[in-house]
Amino acid sequence: MRLPMSPTDSMFLLGESRDHPMHVGGLLLLQPPEGADARDVYTMLVEALDRDDQVAPLWRQRAVRSPATFLQWAWEEDPHFDVEYHVRFNALPQPGTIEELWALVSRLHASLLDRTRPLWEVHLIEGLADGRYAIYVKIHHARADGAGAMKLLRRALSTDPDETGMPAPWAVSDSAPPPKSAVGTAIGLPGALVRAARGAVSDVLAVASEAVGLVPALVGTVDRALHDRGGSLSLGAPSTILNVSIAGSRRFAARSWPLERLRLIAKAADATVNDVVLAMSSGALRAFLVEQDALPDDSLVAMVPVALRRDKESAGNGLAILMCSLATDREDARERLDRVRSSMVEGKQAMRGMSTIARLATSAVGVAPLALGVLTGNRALRRPPFNVIVSNVPGPETPLYWNGARVDALYPLSVPVDGQALNITCTSTDDEIAFGLTACARTVPGLRRLLDHLDNELLALEGAVGLGASRPA
Amino acid sequence: MRLPMSPTDSMFLLGESRDHPMHVGGLLLLQPPEGADARDVYTMLVEALDRDDQVAPLWRQRAVRSPATFLQWAWEEDPHFDVEYHVRFNALPQPGTIEELWALVSRLHASLLDRTRPLWEVHLIEGLADGRYAIYVKIHHARADGAGAMKLLRRALSTDPDETGMPAPWAVSDSAPPPKSAVGTAIGLPGALVRAARGAVSDVLAVASEAVGLVPALVGTVDRALHDRGGSLSLGAPSTILNVSIAGSRRFAARSWPLERLRLIAKAADATVNDVVLAMSSGALRAFLVEQDALPDDSLVAMVPVALRRDKESAGNGLAILMCSLATDREDARERLDRVRSSMVEGKQAMRGMSTIARLATSAVGVAPLALGVLTGNRALRRPPFNVIVSNVPGPETPLYWNGARVDALYPLSVPVDGQALNITCTSTDDEIAFGLTACARTVPGLRRLLDHLDNELLALEGAVGLGASRPA
Repeated sequence: MRLPMSPTDSMFLLGESRDHPMHVGGLLLLQPPEGADARDVYTMLVEALDRDDQVAPLWRQRAVRSPATFLQWAWEEDPHFDVEYHVRFNALPQPGTIEELWALVSRLHASLLDRTRPLWEVHLIEGLADGRYAIYVKIHHARADGAGAMKLLRRALSTDPDETGMPAPWAVSDSAPPPKSAVGTAIGLPGALVRAARGAVSDVLAVASEAVGLVPALVGTVDRALHDRGGSLSLGAPSTILNVSIAGSRRFAARSWPLERLRLIAKAADATVNDVVLAMSSGALRAFLVEQDALPDDSLVAMVPVALRRDKESAGNGLAILMCSLATDREDARERLDRVRSSMVEGKQAMRGMSTIARLATSAVGVAPLALGVLTGNRALRRPPFNVIVSNVPGPETPLYWNGARVDALYPLSVPVDGQALNITCTSTDDEIAFGLTACARTVPGLRRLLDHLDNELLALEGAVGLGASRPA
Repeated sequence: MRLPMSPTDSMFLLGESRDHPMHVGGLLLLQPPEGADARDVYTMLVEALDRDDQVAPLWRQRAVRSPATFLQWAWEEDPHFDVEYHVRFNALPQPGTIEELWALVSRLHASLLDRTRPLWEVHLIEGLADGRYAIYVKIHHARADGAGAMKLLRRALSTDPDETGMPAPWAVSDSAPPPKSAVGTAIGLPGALVRAARGAVSDVLAVASEAVGLVPALVGTVDRALHDRGGSLSLGAPSTILNVSIAGSRRFAARSWPLERLRLIAKAADATVNDVVLAMSSGALRAFLVEQDALPDDSLVAMVPVALRRDKESAGNGLAILMCSLATDREDARERLDRVRSSMVEGKQAMRGMSTIARLATSAVGVAPLALGVLTGNRALRRPPFNVIVSNVPGPETPLYWNGARVDALYPLSVPVDGQALNITCTSTDDEIAFGLTACARTVPGLRRLLDHLDNELLALEGAVGLGASRPA
């Protein structure tokens, strides 16, 4: 039986090329329970793999296109489904540090999925010297966006450390496709972009003629952009080395910090944790660009997906995309944080007064140029609508487990596109926040330096708000 | 400085797609010297890697195409050359048997090379439980064909077990591109195909009007084909499950047998070692197809590149492509061997009477339909010109070493194409012959079964020529 694929989802198949794989990824680090080791986690996974019949129908479907479907993409069960093709065993070379893990995952994230099969791979990775076990999951964007992929992974996890007999992540029995996030859900950014673009070129235009409230909203958006104030539209992003055509290889690196450190800074500066995430990114990017003698005079602009509080007027999900000035033209860490904060406050206020449709529409206008570039294969825009995507997806408040093994980290890997060679995506567990950097390996060398700069900037921000001495070791 | 690329070489860039990577590979297994282990080999390789400046100019060049080159492909030095991108560290998961090695190499051989960089990768692979160290090399066909790649690897090796301080395989200082083989040199088959096709559609036609001797040769070739006798043209290959469109994933497996076992069979049957290779392939393919209830009534036809003895008339390299009936319609192993032998003898005799140009021309005519399919993206020919490629490249007569580590095996990985889902390529060292099977993972399941069948057929042939009891254990 063939199920039609939505036009949006099929765009990820149509828009894909060897230099632009369109899959998202997730990396799980599992800490074996007391008295067990990584080998036991491996054994449990192999046992789960042997229960072949447990593979959910969703993961047995492949994408097909034929004259029978009028050349439209559709989903059908793979008649030759072979779970052993999809679940793969890997090992890290010595010395098995986190650096070897990033190198392997970067390479796994760079290769294209086989289109004749269901569009996913699970890589089991042994050999971390610290005793943890890693699982990297890769799913095509036509099947799930980043947020959906993370949700699928979460479904396979439990908050109960004593729960056993849990199915493999790929065996989760729900056969419904994972929900796709609306404009702005962060990790699945190209999803947001494509949907936004589609909004911009069809829905929005159709709606615009009817929605009287929309025109003032757009006017306000443009006005704020002209005066370099917060909102969903940026007219002022400078060209940087991050905003060029990209190549096929990928580099991924990530690091975690105690969430409490960011919370304390936020509290001291009357800001949000998200503001601190942005300020850290700002300082780190500034240092990274200065090092390469490539800092533009104008401030970098970040594209930030945000969740807005729901109110009566805006039913549905309260999501929007904001363009945030990162104040990279300022030398002082505290000044950068304050400017980020006010840019975000103003943008959110502007958004909050709008109806859902106006908010989606203005968000769509902001990202439309890039999204259209992705779809049309436009390589390297003359002037980027923004310089970098920084998204922060709050995670579960309690620890998660798989068959007693604690989820020590859950890193998302996103999809760099032409003109956006670097994505910064944060996720948090109950007590830590992880910064995951996905980049084009060719365009963004020295990703680890950027992690060091993030660490330095966290220290600088603590110093700037007077927390330097009291910081937990 | 830009160096123009030959039209033939650029065809491999133009003809490449996600399902049809156009790179060749080689797998080296190194046995550490007495008193050393795999870790020492690793250390020597890392030391070689650290001598970055030693990378030969050839390996620093990438393929480019731009308006400046009138959109023709050319070679230029990569301004951002980074040897660490090209040399990668891998490890096998437990238990580290040869099966884990085949699984890893299959995956490494399936992914596309990054076109923004020089078109090669070297994968250092640790974790073989038997203490050996593996190196997999991947080179784009636009840069080297299989034979050329093997030659490059050989240049980095020594016949002296005591030689030390040898450079890394990628540091070999010769800056000339590896010589490309002429029609028929086996491992680089698509190279032969493309050149043959080019021959067929241009050179041959141009020469044909001048070379009076060519027409009788072609007539003879067609006549032999019509009567199902040996020669370079086959009109009778049946459709099989091996002759379909292929997908992007690859499977590689290999096994070695003592060369002496094949020599003894050849001697007893008045045949050549190459005939025994073909008879083994025949019996194994027959068993493999019978198992899947897919044996065609007509015999399979193998495309066999052969080296002919040089004589006065044919200066230049004495290479040709023969179509050999594998006699898979016969149940008896000895009968299959005899028929293979006579098919090869007749084909070679027919070729030997020809001039070089006539031989190349008739060879080209035989493979032209497939080659044209490769170039034009013609998926799955209605009727395959042959069913499988079986090539046998005799190796060095003496053992080879890299910094004291003995080359235990040297396996070539070739390029399956649409209509030819399986390649059988043999190489030999001083005392062993290795059968390397490269296949589309989707089309040819159970490659390891085929290795078992090869083993069974070797036993059957020994029995058939009366060597059953005297066979070395």
